[in-house]
Amino acid sequence: MKCGIVIFPSKKLQDLANSYRKRYDPHYALIPPHLTLKAAFDTDYDLNQFTEKLNNIAEKYEPFILKIRKVSSFEPISHTIHFKAEKNAELEGLNEDFYKELPGGAPEHPFVPHITIAQKLSNDEHSDVFGSLKMLGVAHEELVDRFHLVYQLDNESWTVHETFRLGKDPQ
Amino acid sequence: MKCGIVIFPSKKLQDLANSYRKRYDPHYALIPPHLTLKAAFDTDYDLNQFTEKLNNIAEKYEPFILKIRKVSSFEPISHTIHFKAEKNAELEGLNEDFYKELPGGAPEHPFVPHITIAQKLSNDEHSDVFGSLKMLGVAHEELVDRFHLVYQLDNESWTVHETFRLGKDPQ
Repeated sequence: MKCGIVIFPSKKLQDLANSYRKRYDPHYALIPPHLTLKAAFDTDYDLNQFTEKLNNIAEKYEPFILKIRKVSSFEPISHTIHFKAEKNAELEGLNEDFYKELPGGAPEHPFVPHITIAQKLSNDEHSDVFGSLKMLGVAHEELVDRFHLVYQLDNESWTVHETFRLGKDPQ
Repeated sequence: MKCGIVIFPSKKLQDLANSYRKRYDPHYALIPPHLTLKAAFDTDYDLNQFTEKLNNIAEKYEPFILKIRKVSSFEPISHTIHFKAEKNAELEGLNEDFYKELPGGAPEHPFVPHITIAQKLSNDEHSDVFGSLKMLGVAHEELVDRFHLVYQLDNESWTVHETFRLGKDPQ
């Protein structure tokens, strides 16, 4: 089974991301807008085997402010346009811990926390769309107090297995 | 915000349900296959306000076996075809508690626990599809150890807010 770890941001930010994804992201119907903390990895384990490890990691980090300041692109590596999140100790720590504690190899790319709003565009589409989204801009802050362990179905859509709340004493 | 409470069954049962939903359920892309414990209700509250109540309800019920024995239809009330789940004390108790403890009015219909595999079919489609799915049949059992609080985005798709594990001492 393929699984991964993501943050689903607030409804407000998901709705904004979806207004772009609807037109520009072929994964629009497969998963709600999300920030990936650990990319998809294969496992034969019952996902409940990860619960204790993930609870321990969740306890290490208090809820934190997610800051989105701009629309970026991964060009020339890919034509993925995204809301770029400012790095902070919690995002980097969570990402490192998940790669250390869970199955799957080293990350393919350095960790750039982001919420994808467009991908798999042609060269021309990418220039057009990125040009106009960059102009529009984005400025958003919100509290993140949880992450989700998700797994992929045969149709490539994702289901949530479990939520983990950050902090020693989650409210 | 609209929210609701559902069980996502195992990947195996979700994949089976999706093999029908793909063709016969216009909600296919909006939410993974699920068993609704409390239908969508409107709330202005921060969803975290429900956490304590839902934790208390989750503690009252131990994990239980979900038994699916047949394909049914809600005809003549609607053309919704579904995997019918056998009623048991846990499903009925959870359903009652959610209606007692959470906002929203009384249920519109008596509680018939089920996983929808086809809906909004025309008369003729319904007869055809129900005829052949009934013949195919279904027999499935699995352990249910959690439920999910979900909320709806502007595009009508659903995101998971939080998972609650059943039992006094969830493993």
